[in-house]
This record gives sequence, C-alpha cells and structure tokens, in this order.
Amino acid sequence: MEHVQQVEPFDYVIFGATGDLTMRKLLPALYNRLRIGQIPDDARIIGTARTDIDRDGYVARAKEALERFIPDDVRSPVLVDRFLGLLHYVTLDGTKADSEWSALSSILSEAPADRIRVYYFATAPQLYGRICENLHSHNLVSQHSRVVLEKPIGTDMATATAINDGVGQYFPENQVYRIDHYLGKETVQNVLALRFANPIMNAVWSAEQIESVQITAAETVGVEGRASYYDTSGAMRDMIQNHLLQVLCLVAMEAPDSLEADTVRNAKLAVLNALRPITDETVASETVRAQYTAGVVGGQSVPGYLEELGQPSNTETYAAVRAWVDTPRWKGVPFYIRTAKRSARKVSEIVIRFRAAPTALFGATPPGNRLVIRIQPNEGVELQLNVKNPALDAYTLRTADLDTTIRMEGGLPFPDSYERLLLDAVRGNPVLFIRRDEVEAAWRWAEPVLKAWSENKVPMQTYSAGSYGPEKSAALLADKGDKWHEDME
Amino acid sequence: MEHVQQVEPFDYVIFGATGDLTMRKLLPALYNRLRIGQIPDDARIIGTARTDIDRDGYVARAKEALERFIPDDVRSPVLVDRFLGLLHYVTLDGTKADSEWSALSSILSEAPADRIRVYYFATAPQLYGRICENLHSHNLVSQHSRVVLEKPIGTDMATATAINDGVGQYFPENQVYRIDHYLGKETVQNVLALRFANPIMNAVWSAEQIESVQITAAETVGVEGRASYYDTSGAMRDMIQNHLLQVLCLVAMEAPDSLEADTVRNAKLAVLNALRPITDETVASETVRAQYTAGVVGGQSVPGYLEELGQPSNTETYAAVRAWVDTPRWKGVPFYIRTAKRSARKVSEIVIRFRAAPTALFGATPPGNRLVIRIQPNEGVELQLNVKNPALDAYTLRTADLDTTIRMEGGLPFPDSYERLLLDAVRGNPVLFIRRDEVEAAWRWAEPVLKAWSENKVPMQTYSAGSYGPEKSAALLADKGDKWHEDME
Repeated sequence: MEHVQQVEPFDYVIFGATGDLTMRKLLPALYNRLRIGQIPDDARIIGTARTDIDRDGYVARAKEALERFIPDDVRSPVLVDRFLGLLHYVTLDGTKADSEWSALSSILSEAPADRIRVYYFATAPQLYGRICENLHSHNLVSQHSRVVLEKPIGTDMATATAINDGVGQYFPENQVYRIDHYLGKETVQNVLALRFANPIMNAVWSAEQIESVQITAAETVGVEGRASYYDTSGAMRDMIQNHLLQVLCLVAMEAPDSLEADTVRNAKLAVLNALRPITDETVASETVRAQYTAGVVGGQSVPGYLEELGQPSNTETYAAVRAWVDTPRWKGVPFYIRTAKRSARKVSEIVIRFRAAPTALFGATPPGNRLVIRIQPNEGVELQLNVKNPALDAYTLRTADLDTTIRMEGGLPFPDSYERLLLDAVRGNPVLFIRRDEVEAAWRWAEPVLKAWSENKVPMQTYSAGSYGPEKSAALLADKGDKWHEDME
Repeated sequence: MEHVQQVEPFDYVIFGATGDLTMRKLLPALYNRLRIGQIPDDARIIGTARTDIDRDGYVARAKEALERFIPDDVRSPVLVDRFLGLLHYVTLDGTKADSEWSALSSILSEAPADRIRVYYFATAPQLYGRICENLHSHNLVSQHSRVVLEKPIGTDMATATAINDGVGQYFPENQVYRIDHYLGKETVQNVLALRFANPIMNAVWSAEQIESVQITAAETVGVEGRASYYDTSGAMRDMIQNHLLQVLCLVAMEAPDSLEADTVRNAKLAVLNALRPITDETVASETVRAQYTAGVVGGQSVPGYLEELGQPSNTETYAAVRAWVDTPRWKGVPFYIRTAKRSARKVSEIVIRFRAAPTALFGATPPGNRLVIRIQPNEGVELQLNVKNPALDAYTLRTADLDTTIRMEGGLPFPDSYERLLLDAVRGNPVLFIRRDEVEAAWRWAEPVLKAWSENKVPMQTYSAGSYGPEKSAALLADKGDKWHEDME
C-alpha cells in the first residue's frame, strides 16, 4: 500500500451536520481516514445545524452513525473514541445573520490563523450563498478557507448561476470545491490510465475504430421515502447533468498535458463545449424519458413511482440520451447515456464498442470488439475479442472475454469515493472537483432537454420496475444498428 | 459443438506403421475421429512396415497403443473393436522394389478406383523418394492419392531438395501434404483470428505500436533415450526451421484475401522470403546456441546432454535467434525465436510486446503493453494493460492481466493437432500443410546459421537443466533494452 501520509491539521466545518449525508457518508469517511492514520490528532470536525443539541448529543448521534455505517471489523472502540474526540458542535442556522455565529467563531479562533479550514455544505444548495455571506460577515473566510459544495448546483442554468455567484462573491474559484462523488470512484479515474498509459488503447480511441460509447448508471432501488424530494429533480438532473456527463468527459477528452487540476478540467470543459446542442427539433429523436410502474425487483413486488408519490408527475426516473461530441476525434460516434431507478440490475459501466472488422476472411463479419469498464458492481475491465472457436475442423469464430477485476492491495475494500475527495479538499487538490465553467457548460447542454420535457415535447414512457427500461430506449440505438450492452449476445 | 460430418471413405496407408509416431499419435488420432463419428465404416487403415507380423499381431499392438494413449473415459471396448476392425497390415519394405507390394496392391484394389487414398510416411525422410518410386511402379498412385510427409524435410537445402524432388517426381505438389503439427494447434491457428477478426488488434499490428515479438517453445524433457538421433538434428532443425518459423509467419504475414490454402501459403512465403539473411558477419550477434548440463528439473536431478550422449557433440539443445522481417510493416521490430530442451518450464507462447506510452502524465513511463498468446501449457490469450493502482489518494499505475483461457465447448479436451491434420489430408484441405517453396525458403534462411554453427563461428554455451537457458541469451535482447518474457516484472 502507498505510504499513508497525514494531511496538515485542519478544521472541517460541516453545515447540515445532523443530516443524512453527514451521518451516512461524511463522518464514516473521516473516521476511515483517521483509522488509517491520515488525520492528525489536533484536527477538528465541527458540526453545525439548527438542531438544538449540545456536544454530547451530537457525539451520541455520530457514534450511532459509525456503528451503523462502519463495518464491525474496522470499527475499534479506541479509534471511535479518538474520532469522537475530534468532534465539536454548534447549534446554528447558517442562513441567519444573527444566529450563533459567535460560538462558531470562538471555536475556530482557538486554532492558529493559518490553519486549513474546510466548510462543507451538506445543506440545500439554495442556502450556499447565504451561508457564505454570513461566513464572510463574521470574518470566517481567509485564504486558508475552502468551501465544498454538494450537488446539485442548481436545477437549471439560472439557479446554478445564482448559487455560484452567491458563493463566488466570498470565495474565489480556486477555493471552491464542487464535489461529484463519481469522480472519486476508482474505476472512473481509471479511464485516464486506460486511455493514456496504454498505447494500444490510445491508438484505437477515436471514431476510426470506435462505433459507439455507452455510459450507464442503473440502480435497483426506487425513490421510496424520498419520492417527494426526487420529484423535484428527476433522472436527468440527479445523474446525467453531473455524474454521467463527467464520465463522458473522461472518455472523450483529448490527452491533457499533465494531471494538474486546471489542465484536466480544461480538457473536460472542451468536451462539454463540443456537445452538440439538443434542440426542440431533435429532442424527441435523441432522448427518452420514462417512469417505472409496479414490478418485481430481486423477487420482491414493488410499487410504481406514481403510487409512491401519490400524485401525478411529469418527472422521469429513467433517462437516456444520444449525445454527440462534435470534435474531429468523435465525428459520427454516438454517446449513449442512461440512468434508471428500479432497474433489473445495479450496474454502472462504460461500454466502448469498436467497429466490426471489415474482413471477409471468416465468412460472416465478426462482431465488433467491446471494452467494458465496470464501475459497479465489481470494479474491473473486460475486453471482448473474437477468437477462433476451438473446434474439430471448422474455422469459425467466437467471442472471448478477457477480464480483470481491479482490487486494492491486500484485498481491502475500495475507499468510499467521499474519503478521497474530503481529504483532497484539505490538501488543496481540486483535480477531482468540478469547476464553475464545467457546471455551466453541462447545464447549457441539459437545460433545453429539461425544458422540452417539461413542455411534454417528448412523451413520457413507462417501464416495469425490474426491467432494463422502456421499450422506446432500444429505438435510440436501433437507429444506428446498435444495442444496449445487455441486449448484445 | 460443430456438426460432425463423416469424411469420404478412404484408405489410409501408413508406412512405418509399427513405429513410435504411429502408435503414439496416428492411431490414437484416427481412433478419436472414429469415436466422434467422422470415420465411415468402410474406411481402412493399412499399416505397413518391415516387421514380420500378421494382421492379428498388428491389431494386438494397435490395441495396446490405444490402451496406453487413449484416456480411459473415452476408450470404449465397442469403439476400440470397431476401430481395430478397420486395420489391415502388410509386411513390406517400402524402399525395396521387389518387396511385398503385390499384397498391398491387392488390398487396395478391393476398394473402388476413385477412393481417396492417403499415403502417410512415418519413416525416415530419406526413404520418401524411394517409397514414392515404388508406389508409382506398382501403379498405386492416382489422382485420388495423396502423400503426407512427416518432418524433417531434410537437414539442409540439398537434402530437402532431394526429398522434395523424389516425391515430386510421382506426386504433383497439390497432392503432397507436408505436416507441421504446430499448425494443427488451436491457439496457433488462433493467431489469424486474433489479428484479422479484431480491428483493435489489427490496428496496432505493426512496427508503429509493436516493439518486439517473442516466440518460445520450451520443454522440460531432455533427449534421454533419443540422444543419438537428436544429435543428428538439434534445436534449430528440430523446432525453429519448421514449427517456430511457421508461427512467425502467422504473426508477421500480411492479411490474406481469403483462407484458401494457397492464398495463406503465399502470404506466409512472403514473410519467409523477407527474412533478413543471417551471414557469417552477423551470426554471432544474432544467434545463441547451447547445450544443457546436469541440473534439477521438477525437483529431480537429471544428467547433462553430453553425459546422455556419452561423447562430445557440437549439437545444440537450445537455440535462440533474433530474426528480422524486412517488410515495411515490421521495420525495426526484432522477432526473438527460441527453443529449449530441459527448460525450467514447459511453455509455448507468442509474446507481442507493444511500445511504451510516450506519455509523461503518470510520472515514470508506464511499461509497454503485452499480448501473450499461450499455446502451452494452457491455451489462452492474455493482455497486459496499465491501470490505475487503486490506492488511497495517489495516482499511480500498476499492470493488470486481462486473461482468457480458451476451451472447447462442453469442457472437452482439445483435439490432438494430428487429428485435424490427418483428416484434412483426407478432405483434400492443404491449408495447414507446408508447401514446398515454404520449406525451401525456411532452409534458405536457416542453412547459413547451421553452417556457421558447424564451423564454430558461434561459441557453444551451456545452461543448467531446469534453467531458462544460457546467460548469453539475455544479451540477445538486452541489446535493444528488451527482456525475455519470464524476466519481465
């Protein structure tokens, strides 16, 4: 394993510290990093929320969260105690100027003035600007401060701009860390290694050899208790505009000159800017949206989306888009992006489909090669090649899967994607965070789709819970003689 | 499994029918094909040899061979009996004009005149011509006859020419089947599928992406009881001039327009003709030869070659050559070919080593990709790629092996390479046999090496039995900054 190095001492101030994200992801991620020795003894984690509890009350909640979300075999009483010892809590409504800011100021002022201070906003995004304003007016922003913004950055360009403006008024862009936990996933980052550290991949990574790209993130869970929140978002905003477009950028970007943050982000931005706009004229042919109906997932009957919501809705739980990257490298190559709730399988993957051999040597044209970069459920890379079918006498072909599963050394589980990102913010390494112009370019592309959908220019389809999606989504690919990965033989 | 089709009725006449090859390979191969239903009931297998036994005596020997070389689970008394029922035997010295030819004629004349007749020469190659002459003078050659020639076709160009001339006087080239059992191996044939049915392989199959090619055939066995025969041959004649040059041809050839026999053989011939001649000036830098000394193989002490032979010898049991294919596709790409007896491992493989990425993205230059086509011990394909090392925070690389083992459907063992070739001769399909001009081109290249070695222009090295070969062989690759596969990390 790489040498584990402590980060500099820091104060991590979490707004929304009693919420689900903090309990489920942030505190467990920080605990895991303490466990492996990356967190210095004098680091502090300062929770804030409106909930009126004292430090002991917060520690009790945090302890409960660790017991629930940290597996027994890596949860030691000693380490948990040490972790809980880092915790502080301030009851505070971050949006109110006259709230208990003095208590927070007082805690923070106990540390040296040049201490790294990360403000993590695990609150509703429309509050980000107000909190920043209050941080500023209470003199809590310095050049050593950073702010981490959870998605969604808005629900369209206007709200995104408002959020970014609100934050940007008090934090310069290089102190703003927009988190996209997909970029913290090992195999997502692996796309860059696969492409640029392997000349045989790099040599075939263009329209000359690639016929299409599929990017899928499907989950078996539905919206369940979160239906009323989800109904304000939908599949496009929840997954495509951010996570899956980011994955697309890594697949499609030109080689950066370095892995420096802005070099990589410039290369991703160029892809977003090259996305062909979807217009009112093309939206019906390039996109599919759908809601799940009742069905069976994993042997269990589950209700449909509208039943869970209890009212009519125009929000999609499935979205598929045929995107085009209008650069010379990708001329004529469709990028199929889709996401689904209540899918047949939990799967996140990138499928690179290469063109078929034009050879007539083997009778029928052999199928095109496929490279599958698996993100979920088991991280790995799979390359499908045509080989001779070992057979008595004939010379026929069959496909063979060359496969590798990617594991941590020592068989350890992969770190949760939050773990890396939380400490990258401390380290001041923004390469895996999203720059403002990327967010805006993504909205610029997604907004016309959302608008056309809201105006019902694309009929809402349905699909049974436990299926792979609506029938109509096959048509998106059939157009070009293509198929979704699970439909290929 | 492919549909099993019976071949046409045939008479298989084996010269040398009591010898080791017949017992170990030919009869078991024919039995296996009878077992799966490919051999018609009225086919006949007619053994001939000088051994003075009758049919019952031959059947008894054949039965013993099947018991020894056919695994129990596929040897059924009923099928063995049916197979033995196909056997005939004629005591005959094929080289003598006045021998018992009438008995053979008489058996053959019982079949229709247009029956397919295969003469298989499992005798010393210098006898081939005489046997052909006698077949001719006894009117046993027709347009329905074919002759299968076992290697070695000569020990140099002059003897090869003599053998080919001797046979060619009575059999036109299209009735001559020169067998090279390496071409009957599934994964050797797979080279064509890998190259031409996979555009992503085809696209990188040239000097632009390939840095070097290694072709290895090493075995753990020594020469043991066969030392005095082997001493007249040696590693270059026994393995390189035929088998490994054929493998090189499949790796290096240009795409044929079809899989027709002469189209493929023309493409292979073009490679042989493009081999850069090795001269007295270059032989010492381009070749290594060696004999094994006493050592340990598989935990067992074994004697050296000279001890087994009991006398001094100038014959190599290890040979390695750096060959160059002087075509535009392979400009500057060394082909390293080697073969060894008493090696550390039984391994036959082709290693395609791709050039390293010129990228500086990941700090140190990542190692070049490798494609390994495994022929022995387990048939398969392995592709070594660079992937991101899943790690806590750093962005480092490691190699990952994408691997597939190639198996027959139903988990059946691969057919022995003789099985396919023996029946291909019946079918009249010469694609996997060697044409005369190929043999000659191979000798044209090999002969100067053998001559220089016989004149001791290249020092004879030694290597311990159970090692990978002489130290000097590493130098052959170190020249270009390369290493043998087992020496790579």
